[in-house]
Amino acid sequence: METRDIVLGVDIGGTTTSFGFVDREGTVLAEATIPTEGRKPAQTLVPRLAARAAEVAAGLAGTRLLGVGVCAPNANQNTGTVENAVNLAWDPVTDLRGLVRQHYDLPVEISNDANAAALGEMLFGGAKGMKHFIVITLGTGLGSGLVANGQLLLGADGLAGELGHVVVQAGGRECGCGRRGCLETYVSATGLCRTLFELLADSREPSDLRTVPYQDLTAKRIFDAARAGDPIALAAFDRTARTLGLKLADAVAHTGPEAIFLFGGMAAAGDLLLRPAQAYMEEFLFPAYRGHVKLLPSQMQAGSAAILGAAALIWNRLAR
Amino acid sequence: METRDIVLGVDIGGTTTSFGFVDREGTVLAEATIPTEGRKPAQTLVPRLAARAAEVAAGLAGTRLLGVGVCAPNANQNTGTVENAVNLAWDPVTDLRGLVRQHYDLPVEISNDANAAALGEMLFGGAKGMKHFIVITLGTGLGSGLVANGQLLLGADGLAGELGHVVVQAGGRECGCGRRGCLETYVSATGLCRTLFELLADSREPSDLRTVPYQDLTAKRIFDAARAGDPIALAAFDRTARTLGLKLADAVAHTGPEAIFLFGGMAAAGDLLLRPAQAYMEEFLFPAYRGHVKLLPSQMQAGSAAILGAAALIWNRLAR
Repeated sequence: METRDIVLGVDIGGTTTSFGFVDREGTVLAEATIPTEGRKPAQTLVPRLAARAAEVAAGLAGTRLLGVGVCAPNANQNTGTVENAVNLAWDPVTDLRGLVRQHYDLPVEISNDANAAALGEMLFGGAKGMKHFIVITLGTGLGSGLVANGQLLLGADGLAGELGHVVVQAGGRECGCGRRGCLETYVSATGLCRTLFELLADSREPSDLRTVPYQDLTAKRIFDAARAGDPIALAAFDRTARTLGLKLADAVAHTGPEAIFLFGGMAAAGDLLLRPAQAYMEEFLFPAYRGHVKLLPSQMQAGSAAILGAAALIWNRLAR
Repeated sequence: METRDIVLGVDIGGTTTSFGFVDREGTVLAEATIPTEGRKPAQTLVPRLAARAAEVAAGLAGTRLLGVGVCAPNANQNTGTVENAVNLAWDPVTDLRGLVRQHYDLPVEISNDANAAALGEMLFGGAKGMKHFIVITLGTGLGSGLVANGQLLLGADGLAGELGHVVVQAGGRECGCGRRGCLETYVSATGLCRTLFELLADSREPSDLRTVPYQDLTAKRIFDAARAGDPIALAAFDRTARTLGLKLADAVAHTGPEAIFLFGGMAAAGDLLLRPAQAYMEEFLFPAYRGHVKLLPSQMQAGSAAILGAAALIWNRLAR
């Protein structure tokens, strides 16, 4: 029987850590999860992960493990450090790669989820064969992974490609990063909720959402209201799409991508967000770029995207 | 006698075409100019250039020509085309590289001046040894060349790195590109003049520049007035620096450069523009980037920068 080459892809989340064994074509042969226990240090997570992964691997006959790819919040691919990890009470981890290598004498790559998503899209998704593209992950916040000349743009400090923190409006909305006016305070699930409340205040238009307190509001409720024709909910999506289109046009002027992929729950709101964002982007694009940049939903399966992205980190390295 | 390897660097401008023979260390061994005669087609310029360059080369004993680098307005490095060249009445040139190769059976590279300036800075200027940096050329407009992972960011269509056309304000000032609110309408010699007139209108403050009609106003006059303490001129520089700092912070969030170099006449206004722009950029930077990005004047000599940039196009290719 021929040996099948596989890698281990690991996605460390605030609550759950998922992992899976992935072959070169992006097939997940086996996967499982363990609780992250993010209140305990990273040093306790890695041995538990390795032990559970060994159990799962025992069921995979005829395979050869070639490396491990890990994505973790705020992980720096250049340095291997993890600082200020969202939803984790970790002290700064100076060498997550080293921690993993204590259990695997193999190539190890770490990165944040948006960069992993970009490589996942390149190896297994809609960006196959593309040398220049951008992946935007839309969730509570806005993450991004930029690929140029076939390589991730990591920059001098490994921190490039943070489009969630380009400035939409100087002195605008308070952001979790400590500044004001960042893109993710306008374009994200929470940004959409903030825009909706602004519009409820600005306008006298009736809306079913006038009965909902801020803390109960979700992007899903705004989505449902918009689908039902609620004018304020529709206006909130339109304004969000316009801001996204404007800043994507700026991103195009920087890196000249062939396509931009939207990943995450909000990307599914095609008619409400993706299509109008494409139209606004075209309006704001430098004329030479017009009609040249596709705005597309990610082709990655929501369920296994994180594991595939983590696996792509190491498959991409092995391919070089 | 040892043979000295040289390349020919050519800078095609609206009025004058300059060229020079440049060695690997960036020494210009000989240089000359010819009139561009931009009303005539590109097909007539290249033979005149080659003839005059041959005369100049005749004086260079013991050299070997390795290639030709050409910068021309709006030249596309990927395709070799020149379309809508500023100040030239050329029909679209589908293959400028091919035109040059009719006279030189050698590697030929073409690009626009900002990309050439970036490679010049990398090979011969302040960006030696850097893998991630940006060069901003400030003149009548604002050009830019972005380098990431040691390579020019050209993008899918060869048109990436047009920071002059990121949007400062949707619906803002009219730009030559047909849109509104582009960065170069605020940050450039003409942008500074427009800002000064806006401030003269907004404010009641006295200013010597209230006697100057718009068509006679220059960045140099505003510079001189600011040096003499004119409050409106000082405010115009401050506002220009703030807009530049804001958009440079966005550029950092895209590509994570180690340094940003300012090239051109306005970059010389260090205390009035460069230093306050650095302070504003720091204010607008995502916290993780703060203190990590230097804003520096270009280290290229103004006189020979264009020829050196053009020469760098080909030295960089030969080094790969």
